[in-house]
Amino acid sequence: MSDKDKLIVDASSRQYPIFFADSLEELLMEQLDSFLTSQVVIITNTTVELLYLDMVKKVLAHQGVNPFVVILPDGEEYKNQETLNIIYDALLSNNIERNATLISLGGGVIGDTVGFAAATYQRGVPFIQIPTTLLSQVDSSVGGKTAINHPLGKNMIGAFYQPQAVFIGQDVLQTLPKKEFSAGMAEVVKYALLGNYDFFEWLENNIDLINALDNKAIRHILYTCCQMKAEIVAQDEKEGGIRALFNLGHTFGHVIEVEMGFGHWLHGEAVAVGLILASKLSQNYANVNSTDILRLENLLNAFNLPIKPPVIPIEDWLKGFKHDKKVKEGVVRFITLESFGRAIVNPSITEEDLRGVLNEYQSE
Amino acid sequence: MSDKDKLIVDASSRQYPIFFADSLEELLMEQLDSFLTSQVVIITNTTVELLYLDMVKKVLAHQGVNPFVVILPDGEEYKNQETLNIIYDALLSNNIERNATLISLGGGVIGDTVGFAAATYQRGVPFIQIPTTLLSQVDSSVGGKTAINHPLGKNMIGAFYQPQAVFIGQDVLQTLPKKEFSAGMAEVVKYALLGNYDFFEWLENNIDLINALDNKAIRHILYTCCQMKAEIVAQDEKEGGIRALFNLGHTFGHVIEVEMGFGHWLHGEAVAVGLILASKLSQNYANVNSTDILRLENLLNAFNLPIKPPVIPIEDWLKGFKHDKKVKEGVVRFITLESFGRAIVNPSITEEDLRGVLNEYQSE
Repeated sequence: MSDKDKLIVDASSRQYPIFFADSLEELLMEQLDSFLTSQVVIITNTTVELLYLDMVKKVLAHQGVNPFVVILPDGEEYKNQETLNIIYDALLSNNIERNATLISLGGGVIGDTVGFAAATYQRGVPFIQIPTTLLSQVDSSVGGKTAINHPLGKNMIGAFYQPQAVFIGQDVLQTLPKKEFSAGMAEVVKYALLGNYDFFEWLENNIDLINALDNKAIRHILYTCCQMKAEIVAQDEKEGGIRALFNLGHTFGHVIEVEMGFGHWLHGEAVAVGLILASKLSQNYANVNSTDILRLENLLNAFNLPIKPPVIPIEDWLKGFKHDKKVKEGVVRFITLESFGRAIVNPSITEEDLRGVLNEYQSE
Repeated sequence: MSDKDKLIVDASSRQYPIFFADSLEELLMEQLDSFLTSQVVIITNTTVELLYLDMVKKVLAHQGVNPFVVILPDGEEYKNQETLNIIYDALLSNNIERNATLISLGGGVIGDTVGFAAATYQRGVPFIQIPTTLLSQVDSSVGGKTAINHPLGKNMIGAFYQPQAVFIGQDVLQTLPKKEFSAGMAEVVKYALLGNYDFFEWLENNIDLINALDNKAIRHILYTCCQMKAEIVAQDEKEGGIRALFNLGHTFGHVIEVEMGFGHWLHGEAVAVGLILASKLSQNYANVNSTDILRLENLLNAFNLPIKPPVIPIEDWLKGFKHDKKVKEGVVRFITLESFGRAIVNPSITEEDLRGVLNEYQSE
């Protein structure tokens, strides 16, 4: 394979490949075969079903496999226990065995839910990620974080459980709604902001190509983000330390998602606003100034992302932070910027700092 | 510490100690401290609460810890999603953090449920096993198998997730109902039957001491079983191979539990009958004869265990086997005996073999 066609994730629990190609169908035809077991289950949602299920089934038929299929409802509001039970019930009542392979075909919600089902069905079965959104291609399908939401917090019930392989075909972005593409770009900007200033500049300089889905530009984005993720996951699979940096903007974003009700704000939209708030929060502590923040706002704007939070009472923000997974001994450890392109875990953020940043926005 | 006071489980995902002592309180006073984090949650049931919760809280108070407590209903019929949700809800609504330690205080049902909650709450928090029944001391608290039941099968939803430590105080057996002690002895006999003929003979020769809860005899049982478990788990944590031998009798036992309704037969009682059926099944294939089976029946009888299955239509038995986690490509891989004291995974058992064994019993 040529350049930027494959990456290896070397997690401590499992080593596995991420494949990149222009055409998902061609990629699966070439590579899927060797990752299958005798029973294969495709799990997707009602939207992706119409777009890609027949194609994947055709590929599998070509490889001599007749998969069992489970269709879930579409949306973050279904990333919950009830949907998980739909999967368990379908697998058990169809005698799906412990050596069956689950194929997750969809975006981040499907990937996280199917991944958690795979982690827990019969104490763990193999699974494969076929991400069909930009967000899941650059972020959620890689690294083994699986989870469902709980009414009291996002991704609160889950497991670290790595897939057998990830198949990224960038032609699926052609069918992705604009809004979903934008949401994915929020995570892309996050990668640049937390650890790659050159990439941030590259994004600023390639806005039109990116929005036009130029093949080469998109491949650069997919590969750069997955490479950063793979490097960090190899060092810190279970987020004991450095992996927490990927949560930049997410502590704010999760509160927006929970407060507005799962599914009302796209995850990426909430993250975009979270990136702004985290950057503002960094101003008191680090080498981040108002010009930097303006650059960030302009970049997010260019990808049609929101940069202002919804109206949420400050006390609800503060209560929401307490449910963050990064809370340690009562202190929320926010991820902030030391400078543009360099994030840190910051245990020094005070309630006053938070009130300051939130007040400023709410009053604008 | 002296002989038979400590074992190390060297699983590939984590190394941890099992401590043995005559007095649970003294053991916890001496050893618990170093395994605690800043937040501690005790999870127990309504029965064990009355017997041991105050003692454990006293020990923790002595160590400067004020635990949060969750009380669950008691019984196998509560080892399910609803009970798991009670735990999640309690943890989240009380801001229990990712570095909190969950203490499982109870028998196998509590240990399996709390272990699975620990495996999945915020993608995994540390947990400690304090088993208060013979069955959980010799079997379920060691080795990291966690799970809840599903209406369609026992332990179908779960994870491999090791505790930080296991604390076994044998004085808790003084308060254990006779019936529960017997159920634990079924698993003890299982260990002997599957891999330690000398231990089988020792059991036959020490029935009175065992039933009288003689301290030295009980310690021999606890240590011998945990040592076998630790050795196998070190070789095969996730049951890719040899660990499956511990399921001797369980494929039959699980059907009894599911068919009779969880909680109607104790797990150990169902396993006792399963051991007989598995031995009968072995007669066609191996060096097991009717005298051996009589010895097994006598030993189980001596510990007041059932040796005859309840009336279940043969077709329901056969359907139930299909939900076993050891099914591979449609074939149930039964664990059978090659000889007394030596079990194997047997992929050659036919439906005819099964009908033969089940018919014989149902017609007696």
